[in-house]
Amino acid sequence: MTESIELQLAQYQSEFQQFIPTLLGPIQSEFAITTDHRLTELFEALEYSCSNGGKRVRPFLTLATFQALGHTPSTSIKMVAGAVEFAHCYSLVHDDLPAMDDDDMRRGKPSCHRAFSEATAILVGDGLQARAFELITTADFSAQQKISMVQTLAAALGPRGMVGGQFIDVCSVGVNLEQSHLESMHRLKTGALIRAAVLLGAHAGAASSQLLHSLDQYAQNLGLCFQVVDDVLDVVGSSESLGKTQGKDEQRGKPTYTQLLGLEGAKQTALELKNNAIAAISDFPGSADTLRDLAEFVVQRQH
Amino acid sequence: MTESIELQLAQYQSEFQQFIPTLLGPIQSEFAITTDHRLTELFEALEYSCSNGGKRVRPFLTLATFQALGHTPSTSIKMVAGAVEFAHCYSLVHDDLPAMDDDDMRRGKPSCHRAFSEATAILVGDGLQARAFELITTADFSAQQKISMVQTLAAALGPRGMVGGQFIDVCSVGVNLEQSHLESMHRLKTGALIRAAVLLGAHAGAASSQLLHSLDQYAQNLGLCFQVVDDVLDVVGSSESLGKTQGKDEQRGKPTYTQLLGLEGAKQTALELKNNAIAAISDFPGSADTLRDLAEFVVQRQH
Repeated sequence: MTESIELQLAQYQSEFQQFIPTLLGPIQSEFAITTDHRLTELFEALEYSCSNGGKRVRPFLTLATFQALGHTPSTSIKMVAGAVEFAHCYSLVHDDLPAMDDDDMRRGKPSCHRAFSEATAILVGDGLQARAFELITTADFSAQQKISMVQTLAAALGPRGMVGGQFIDVCSVGVNLEQSHLESMHRLKTGALIRAAVLLGAHAGAASSQLLHSLDQYAQNLGLCFQVVDDVLDVVGSSESLGKTQGKDEQRGKPTYTQLLGLEGAKQTALELKNNAIAAISDFPGSADTLRDLAEFVVQRQH
Repeated sequence: MTESIELQLAQYQSEFQQFIPTLLGPIQSEFAITTDHRLTELFEALEYSCSNGGKRVRPFLTLATFQALGHTPSTSIKMVAGAVEFAHCYSLVHDDLPAMDDDDMRRGKPSCHRAFSEATAILVGDGLQARAFELITTADFSAQQKISMVQTLAAALGPRGMVGGQFIDVCSVGVNLEQSHLESMHRLKTGALIRAAVLLGAHAGAASSQLLHSLDQYAQNLGLCFQVVDDVLDVVGSSESLGKTQGKDEQRGKPTYTQLLGLEGAKQTALELKNNAIAAISDFPGSADTLRDLAEFVVQRQH
């Protein structure tokens, strides 16, 4: 892995931060006939929830996939990447709610329901999901490409995707899961959106069905790898670099890969998944180097 | 108004109920590699939340608009209508949450978070929203029509639409609003989705921009009319026929049209809005009779 992937990511993180107001769009709309200062408060909460200093790995994956297919990043693909990150931010805001994971902090800042209110956090999550779909429709791709993107994202976010994974997660506290069930949960909970991040970039880049399949294999391995590394970091990472309470998943009795495979076994599994991800795109030219570097980054990250 | 609109609605309510499993789709998906019995529980909660004995006015509006444009109802338009109702059901599930309106009952049945859990209700709402967008993508219309539908629904549900209205509503407890601000709130909170219900039928029916404008005027007047009638019923309706605690909005100190205009003033406003709605589609042939009858129904309904 070159150092440049960390630099690229850092650069993108700062670019994304600047782009948030554009992604949220103007407060005014055709629905509201009067200016309403209370909507300003809602938009502050929306912006706060997207400005959480995240790694922005998902939207970066969308951009890197688009580039791997030979395209130059455009405002349109950045809107699509923004849709992916908004979907992720919505899931974090709802996941932090007292009835869910009950997390007061998110990356070292009060979580949305602590900074504002529980009602606001529910509505911020709901609004970011809707805006994610709206962003795709406004991007400059063909209607067919946009429908493929909406379909992929909707499936990834729905009850057969992320929401299903979250539900299984909520039900699994204190339960011993077999590896196949743990994997199944993570394929939904974190895997589906990471997969969608890559597939949206592939649809935008007009990938052939063969390349789409390779990218999908890459994404599925990477998504699982991401989760295994998360479980490893929950055990070995410090609370400071994670921005959340270290060992919290284990304390809560949530099933983890480290519990199931041991720390070394989990680290080994993460390496295998990373290698599988890279192997899936071995036919790609040099333009896929960023995707390869990202896979290395996921395994080596400290938070 | 002929009696037939009530019969048609009753018939559609029963048809919709039968159609819910199809709208939800199979539990299995390409994301889940193992059968997971816990997803069955999630799907039970999803089905419960859509089987709330609602009036189904919104999806019926989508169908009636499609028919007003000379088309015969197809499975595809029923999927689109289902998307509209799923969006409505999601909003009710989240609206009932303790941090929002804190309603234990919904149409005489325990609300989702009471029947299941708060975490389940949050996820059910999130999942129904995603599924709504997915349903549109699976319908048999052109990609351009489907993107127009996704765009309209996403705008109607987002921070500049329903979510914005809900936020203003949450902030407005105990606040005296001027009529223009009350109207502005309702245009977002209930009006946006009713408008989307009609516009989705119009996009599916390939309406010209002129007809689209007329239908939009109809929908905007009808949406506001719907809310004014809701406020009237909150004062005069019995708890039994409303299926919720009568006078609850007033008790909570929520601003209402009856408070602002008096009971008779609110009734008069509802009639005017209904007349405006019907006038907006006066150029339409007889095939728009159902839309006209629906406007009469909205004003005369007792619950």
